[in-house]
Amino acid sequence: MYEDSIEIIPLTALPEVEEGADLGMLLLGAAPPSGFLPGDLVVVAQKVVSKAEGAVVDLRAVSPSQRAREIAGASGKDPRLVEVILQQARRIVKFERGVLITETHHGLVCANSGVDASNVPGDERVSVLPVDPDGSARAIRKVLEQSAGGPVGVIISDSFNRPWREGSINVAIGVSGFRPLLDRRGESDDYGRPLRATVVSVADEIASAAQLVIGETGRRPAAIVRGYSYESSDGSASELMRDPATDLFR
Amino acid sequence: MYEDSIEIIPLTALPEVEEGADLGMLLLGAAPPSGFLPGDLVVVAQKVVSKAEGAVVDLRAVSPSQRAREIAGASGKDPRLVEVILQQARRIVKFERGVLITETHHGLVCANSGVDASNVPGDERVSVLPVDPDGSARAIRKVLEQSAGGPVGVIISDSFNRPWREGSINVAIGVSGFRPLLDRRGESDDYGRPLRATVVSVADEIASAAQLVIGETGRRPAAIVRGYSYESSDGSASELMRDPATDLFR
Repeated sequence: MYEDSIEIIPLTALPEVEEGADLGMLLLGAAPPSGFLPGDLVVVAQKVVSKAEGAVVDLRAVSPSQRAREIAGASGKDPRLVEVILQQARRIVKFERGVLITETHHGLVCANSGVDASNVPGDERVSVLPVDPDGSARAIRKVLEQSAGGPVGVIISDSFNRPWREGSINVAIGVSGFRPLLDRRGESDDYGRPLRATVVSVADEIASAAQLVIGETGRRPAAIVRGYSYESSDGSASELMRDPATDLFR
Repeated sequence: MYEDSIEIIPLTALPEVEEGADLGMLLLGAAPPSGFLPGDLVVVAQKVVSKAEGAVVDLRAVSPSQRAREIAGASGKDPRLVEVILQQARRIVKFERGVLITETHHGLVCANSGVDASNVPGDERVSVLPVDPDGSARAIRKVLEQSAGGPVGVIISDSFNRPWREGSINVAIGVSGFRPLLDRRGESDDYGRPLRATVVSVADEIASAAQLVIGETGRRPAAIVRGYSYESSDGSASELMRDPATDLFR
């Protein structure tokens, strides 16, 4: 590796993740020959976290409310699926042209409250987001730090669509071990003038970087981002949720 | 490097970029010991592209329109700066609480049409986005491919803020050499069911990955993303602009 370069290393060939699995231990088993090193940032796809935590709902046990039936009728979705989406939501941000964008109880704004049928075994089962993604990250971090013998950062990531731009990108929905925002306010450019892009979402950039090697298929649900300098800190994905007072799109 | 891993290599110690500079040649001069290799994706910060292309406006030569004065009055911005922002815009998307979000003539939705005062020498000068960022990428690509002796992809990147989430991330505003969207519609998950995140903006994810080593300071305005598999193709950043017909937020 060149000086100051960063390496993105996929963790491959993980076993099928079952409810109750210790994801930290499974990741240890999939470590590269180096093992985990102090300073590593480890990105784990939400899907395997939800599966390990049993954040999976069997639609056969769901009774859709009247509201869920109405939205289902207008969107062509399964009313039971809509019911799960509504249960996961604090509010509906937008419902138009069959697309349901919600704000989850965590404060994440995304399509369908992050409820998802892909990569969950069983025809009638869907995954929901982990109840406490920061906590999920913290639990994994504890296991990895013990193995690394030093600080490790963990991101739980999910792919979100967004306004204006085509294609999903991966973002951090859970964070532990570092501050997700890099605040450069007060720093100057090469000409002594204030920097423009003053607050950078490094957690989202790291989640996106990791997604380049994480697959939706093939049992590679996690990656190490190695070589990025950061200060160890508790951190929380809630720092990434825009304050309604400064969000023009709320 | 481990198998299937990706390396992000900063290009450092570039000279000050002056108008008329051949940016491709400057990047060659900043190449790592390996040089550029076939398959490399090279991300270049918009700011140096704008400087090389003379996409810099001296505010002393700008006469603000009545509309620019009104917006300036309501936002506390310099009326001449607002005039430049309006000239770069196809329309105003949102103007609220002093923040001006526009759609540029390219179709990019961002704050202030991407007009920026940081890292431009001279107190009264601001940079604007390149007129044709795909063309800028293509010109750089030509130089780098000749040196690499094979296909190279180039991204011109800029940092954008976005709704709902704090912190800027880097996105691709110009693309040459590959398709910026990875379309996985039709593929199946490990259980034979359709994938959810079917269209991924790999160009934006690569731009964000590169930003982890690109600095707003210190003459490191570009990076190589090495090891990502893609098919060589013309590509264009216009593929990343969401069709108004499918954008709920237009």
